[in-house]
Amino acid sequence: MTAPLDLDELSSRVGPPDDEAAEATRARLATLATPLGSLGRLEELAAWLAAAQGQCPPRDPERARVVVFAGDHGVAAAGVSAYPPEATARLVELVLRGGAAVTVLAGAAGATVRVADLGVAADTPAEASGHKVRRGSGRIDRADALTLAEAERAFSAGATIADAEVDAGADLLIPGHLGVGATTVAAVLVAAVTETEPVKVIGRGSGIDDPTWMRKISAIRDALRRARPYGGDPLALLAVAGGADVAAMTGFLVQAAVRRTPVLLDGVVSAAAGVVAQAAAPAAPAWWLAGHRSPEPAQRIALERLELTPVLDLGLRLEGAGALVALPLLRAAVRACAEIATREEAGLATDGSQRRLTDSSSD
Amino acid sequence: MTAPLDLDELSSRVGPPDDEAAEATRARLATLATPLGSLGRLEELAAWLAAAQGQCPPRDPERARVVVFAGDHGVAAAGVSAYPPEATARLVELVLRGGAAVTVLAGAAGATVRVADLGVAADTPAEASGHKVRRGSGRIDRADALTLAEAERAFSAGATIADAEVDAGADLLIPGHLGVGATTVAAVLVAAVTETEPVKVIGRGSGIDDPTWMRKISAIRDALRRARPYGGDPLALLAVAGGADVAAMTGFLVQAAVRRTPVLLDGVVSAAAGVVAQAAAPAAPAWWLAGHRSPEPAQRIALERLELTPVLDLGLRLEGAGALVALPLLRAAVRACAEIATREEAGLATDGSQRRLTDSSSD
Repeated sequence: MTAPLDLDELSSRVGPPDDEAAEATRARLATLATPLGSLGRLEELAAWLAAAQGQCPPRDPERARVVVFAGDHGVAAAGVSAYPPEATARLVELVLRGGAAVTVLAGAAGATVRVADLGVAADTPAEASGHKVRRGSGRIDRADALTLAEAERAFSAGATIADAEVDAGADLLIPGHLGVGATTVAAVLVAAVTETEPVKVIGRGSGIDDPTWMRKISAIRDALRRARPYGGDPLALLAVAGGADVAAMTGFLVQAAVRRTPVLLDGVVSAAAGVVAQAAAPAAPAWWLAGHRSPEPAQRIALERLELTPVLDLGLRLEGAGALVALPLLRAAVRACAEIATREEAGLATDGSQRRLTDSSSD
Repeated sequence: MTAPLDLDELSSRVGPPDDEAAEATRARLATLATPLGSLGRLEELAAWLAAAQGQCPPRDPERARVVVFAGDHGVAAAGVSAYPPEATARLVELVLRGGAAVTVLAGAAGATVRVADLGVAADTPAEASGHKVRRGSGRIDRADALTLAEAERAFSAGATIADAEVDAGADLLIPGHLGVGATTVAAVLVAAVTETEPVKVIGRGSGIDDPTWMRKISAIRDALRRARPYGGDPLALLAVAGGADVAAMTGFLVQAAVRRTPVLLDGVVSAAAGVVAQAAAPAAPAWWLAGHRSPEPAQRIALERLELTPVLDLGLRLEGAGALVALPLLRAAVRACAEIATREEAGLATDGSQRRLTDSSSD
């Protein structure tokens, strides 16, 4: 028996990012030989990363790491998903050997990938299943996803994974996801925490047809009826309406903040884990950046609650992929901050007369 | 004396991109072990690049090249710009020795930079000034920007530069810009070609105050009165209301299309050169992708005319920079198309039952 999980104690260990490093970064950007504000969102990205790293200028995240949390959800049996669950194990194997979308996009972005099976409905290789909690999480429109003990175990497994990755040198973390039924679960979690009506959180998911949409909204309504009483109790909520994968992702997000490690969120699953993690540790979202706008309405609602604005909006629907395509922008922001000459170095006047000179179109 | 520029002949040399390569790319994407459409805009980027390259899968642009067209505009003397023109030459030097925003962002994106002074109001190093047409273009609210002969020379210089870059191996071109007054000129050109009212094309430019804004709209109105009769005559329009830098960028864009070389457009200056280039060579825009949404309203109007939708919207205001931060997304699209396993390779069913399997959250 391990000691029961004490969320208040965990939350108390989440400190704020370094505002002084962010301020120093903004001040540095204002000295560059480029008009004030002309780097747009890149300036905010540089300041955010500097705050998380506690240094100005911020440094390139050389050890960016994706952790794909894999798990299937019984609610898929309610006919809410266009995909059968049998293939999740095949896709876990594909991540392990390379060739999955998330591994290819990680390669393009200079990141590496780990996959952790928390609740896949089939067996997966030992390399992935060390933290497995169960085979498939419960059908949340009719029953609990997990027992409370399972929810605690999954949450703690996610925290353990975050610790292990940070200890191994990861300097930026990206939660990914793999499995069937998770966007329905995410919508329920977001609705429960933010007290939103079912119809507002439901999306078209994987391109479902009208009858499937009807079954999905009905499943969400039923699940929400069960989940609402636990909107303010993160572990109970994850047990009643979450799942092992999402619970682990939640623990991962909280522990990453404890470890002062920046995180790029992506789609609706990580946004849902984010609002549950925020309920557990209100200071955690300052450590996160939203990489990509999801087509799922529940993600917008979750990000509003987290006060995060996505960097990209490219219509991707692969949890983790959107954050990975945003990563090069973060790298560009770091380079811009560190390498663009100052006005003084460029031989430009540093008084007011040329304070906002441009090296591009400029009026 | 060179022969007079024959735009009709030039236009006739612009062929269409390879639709079959685009179609083959879409078909290939549909076989991957990732849900149909789940890569969002990356799928379109891959198909566009495949069409321009005439091959499936598309290959990574290994020799991406930025050409920064430098020039100052007399209309800045009408008080439309927040910046003095003296520093353009300093910034040309900064591009040559590295340390400019555009060179730093090019480095981050794996591209290289060339700068060509077409009309800077001061002397620049010989390395940049080989195609210089004049010192500063005319104040277009009161006089012509260029003589017709100068406009032809600048246009031809841009075409020569495109040829030289493609001959040297460039496989993707990005027009950049540097100098004072160009966004006002761009707004006038866009308004003249698209027959738009002045108030609709005017933006806040480099963060100008209200009196400056009043002077800017007045200058645009005066310039448009002079420019409107030439909306359908590209070279005359560039002479009356353009400038040497913009005329060169226009020739560059047309010749890049002649040479079947893909181009990433960026802000309002390249969009304005784009609509003038389209007037000269209607088939050219199929070779272009819009990298970034500019805060300038004239850019939106120009891109609507070109039927291009920007990939990013990050508030950058440095012509060339927005396209450079979009370049990694194009590279990610290439990798995704080439390296993600097919469903068959992943050991997934290839019949209808699992046609749309996901390797991320998936319902």
